[in-house]
Amino acid sequence: MKIKPQTPKGFRDFLPSAATRRAFLLDKLTLTFKKYGFEPLETPAVEFAQTLKGKYGEEEKLIYEFSDRGGRELALRYDQTVPLSRVIATYPTLPKPFKRYQTQVVWRADNPQAGRFREFLQVDFDTVGSSSFLSDAEIIACALEAMNKIGFKEYYLRINTRDTFKGLPKKVISALDKLKKLSEQEVVREISKSGFNLEKAKEVLVKIKESKPPRQIEELFNLFSPIGIDKNRVIFDPTLARGLDYYTGVIFEMEVEGYQTGSVGGGGRYDNLIGSFTGKETPAVGFSFGFDRLLDAANSQGLLPEDKATTTVLVTILGDKSLESSLKIASKLRNAGINTEVYLEQLGGKKISLEKQLKYADKKNIPFAIIIGEKEQQEKTVTLKNLSTKKQETIDVISVIDKIRLSQT
Amino acid sequence: MKIKPQTPKGFRDFLPSAATRRAFLLDKLTLTFKKYGFEPLETPAVEFAQTLKGKYGEEEKLIYEFSDRGGRELALRYDQTVPLSRVIATYPTLPKPFKRYQTQVVWRADNPQAGRFREFLQVDFDTVGSSSFLSDAEIIACALEAMNKIGFKEYYLRINTRDTFKGLPKKVISALDKLKKLSEQEVVREISKSGFNLEKAKEVLVKIKESKPPRQIEELFNLFSPIGIDKNRVIFDPTLARGLDYYTGVIFEMEVEGYQTGSVGGGGRYDNLIGSFTGKETPAVGFSFGFDRLLDAANSQGLLPEDKATTTVLVTILGDKSLESSLKIASKLRNAGINTEVYLEQLGGKKISLEKQLKYADKKNIPFAIIIGEKEQQEKTVTLKNLSTKKQETIDVISVIDKIRLSQT
Repeated sequence: MKIKPQTPKGFRDFLPSAATRRAFLLDKLTLTFKKYGFEPLETPAVEFAQTLKGKYGEEEKLIYEFSDRGGRELALRYDQTVPLSRVIATYPTLPKPFKRYQTQVVWRADNPQAGRFREFLQVDFDTVGSSSFLSDAEIIACALEAMNKIGFKEYYLRINTRDTFKGLPKKVISALDKLKKLSEQEVVREISKSGFNLEKAKEVLVKIKESKPPRQIEELFNLFSPIGIDKNRVIFDPTLARGLDYYTGVIFEMEVEGYQTGSVGGGGRYDNLIGSFTGKETPAVGFSFGFDRLLDAANSQGLLPEDKATTTVLVTILGDKSLESSLKIASKLRNAGINTEVYLEQLGGKKISLEKQLKYADKKNIPFAIIIGEKEQQEKTVTLKNLSTKKQETIDVISVIDKIRLSQT
Repeated sequence: MKIKPQTPKGFRDFLPSAATRRAFLLDKLTLTFKKYGFEPLETPAVEFAQTLKGKYGEEEKLIYEFSDRGGRELALRYDQTVPLSRVIATYPTLPKPFKRYQTQVVWRADNPQAGRFREFLQVDFDTVGSSSFLSDAEIIACALEAMNKIGFKEYYLRINTRDTFKGLPKKVISALDKLKKLSEQEVVREISKSGFNLEKAKEVLVKIKESKPPRQIEELFNLFSPIGIDKNRVIFDPTLARGLDYYTGVIFEMEVEGYQTGSVGGGGRYDNLIGSFTGKETPAVGFSFGFDRLLDAANSQGLLPEDKATTTVLVTILGDKSLESSLKIASKLRNAGINTEVYLEQLGGKKISLEKQLKYADKKNIPFAIIIGEKEQQEKTVTLKNLSTKKQETIDVISVIDKIRLSQT
């Protein structure tokens, strides 16, 4: 029976070139996290449904839930902050502050649309157990350095604190969070739904817009210079709200100049969430990169390597006579640390043309081919062909290794 | 409300030290795969249930299935071979042979027991679209080189072909697969269930045990030397059966001398599975490492780094006066590529003793601490403390960077 080979909507395959680009970006991020002393943490895909419930507000309906054979109610990881909180409660002896990064996929039964998926990678780093501004400053420094490491030139962090909204109803925060999508007039209308008349709602918005940085923001800014943060990268924005319920202090969002889709990451301080698991006050601050957007932004600014093949050299196979020489040179290249493929079809007389073999290398963006025919075999040389310039030369094995190595640096 | 912070049975957290060791091993494996020209592939956790069904024989009941809101029947990834087959059918223009590695978790609703989990990492690499013995030899070479790269000294590959069992009922293969767990007498009894009497069943087993390597195995062995495989690592074993239904040719299992739990990986040729998706004959061969066992074997042979911390240096903070100097040296260390933590609690007068800060570094296995007191601040020096030898010296910033770098090589 032939089965229709498709994935469910909102779930993606990453073929080698996409997977390679994703790994490239992820590497730069995790290298930066490690530099700031964040350590890797992995949690299971499946948690008890009870662990996730009551944490995400309205979004809760998007959790993938199911029962197992034993009737246990389980759920797929929805974010990495709630599992982190559960981990802190599960292992009370973990040294604190606990600084971890976590780069796993999460699942949301959302309506798939452009740039929105049901399974996607989240890239988080958090510090748990410190209420010091130093940990806020460090999270910000690390997020900015990650952007720099990726190669972004114009990026900035918008920053605010939930204190700006003290005494205002929750709905005002949700209304402000829509400022990026809606006009001011529409936001005023949203604010008015919290029980203000339109005039008063307008005043609320104006007052927020004109807020001066509160003292905690100023104290935080004082740490920026010694910790190595360029102050010009950080902008106080009193209208920044962020939707999630659990923020309690400083909040921030990362934006890339010229990238219109939206912020590529954000986070803030959430001093009460973890307490709901541990039963005691546990302050925390963290940042989450939206990996798909970050990749998209990096791609739109030409910061990702062009379809770089994993393989550096294809060793062609011209016939049973030269097979052994071809295999041996492949083995030598691999021992020298060069990623090497051997063209696989050609044994027992079925001969594949050199042209077809080179076409295969081209399709896969492999930069070099090595050709060993009878002449090369006799002379103990190889022919190295550069597949982009189409130039080729016949040289000895040691020179060929040096040439390829040189091209890789 | 306080929630009981536990994971469902068979699902695991990996805390930083475990996650670091796992990443260490995974790195060695993927580096080797790349060296042989295998490229990364990622598929979604969730597939249509229909895609997975009818592939795993009796094991099918262990698939995690659920329905989504739209009533679609979905299932969690059960292995990485069926998703690979689906990918080959989904993207018919992928250049062939298609060589991919895939390192993702899979889920099985199995009974959790020692060393058996419901979520675990699989590490696979496969070549699709070549029926050449060269691709079998390459898979074997890559698997053996991965073992070497991890640092194993005594390991070997048992090898056989399904041709050894030609004409014998399927149940005989399942019976043989139990030879590692059951006595020969018990296996003979199992074989007899296929309709042989005990005498005949015994003959079947003896005949299999005395089989000589068929021609295809000999041809394969001829490729070993030029491709760089040490023939002493490969043992023809006519009783090797492997349980899965879909193998059609050569089969193999990797064993570590002195590791009794079982093989650390295995694989073989499966020329018919992918056809059930593509509708046309698509030969394939692959290998799968059991990551948990491989890690366990590597650990039992002392091949994993001892609880290596991500962080190399903890910069302590002795007071508000030296805070700025401490932050600046941390920034310098990071810029020099050294993973650096700053002790986070100490702002606004709340003073934490140096002893407590050093204890934190100890608990996290951080090898160095940098201390900046008033004296160091005045002299523009730092004190570097080696936390394992307890020795310390006061030196300038450039020397400290050099010293730490030297210790890392």
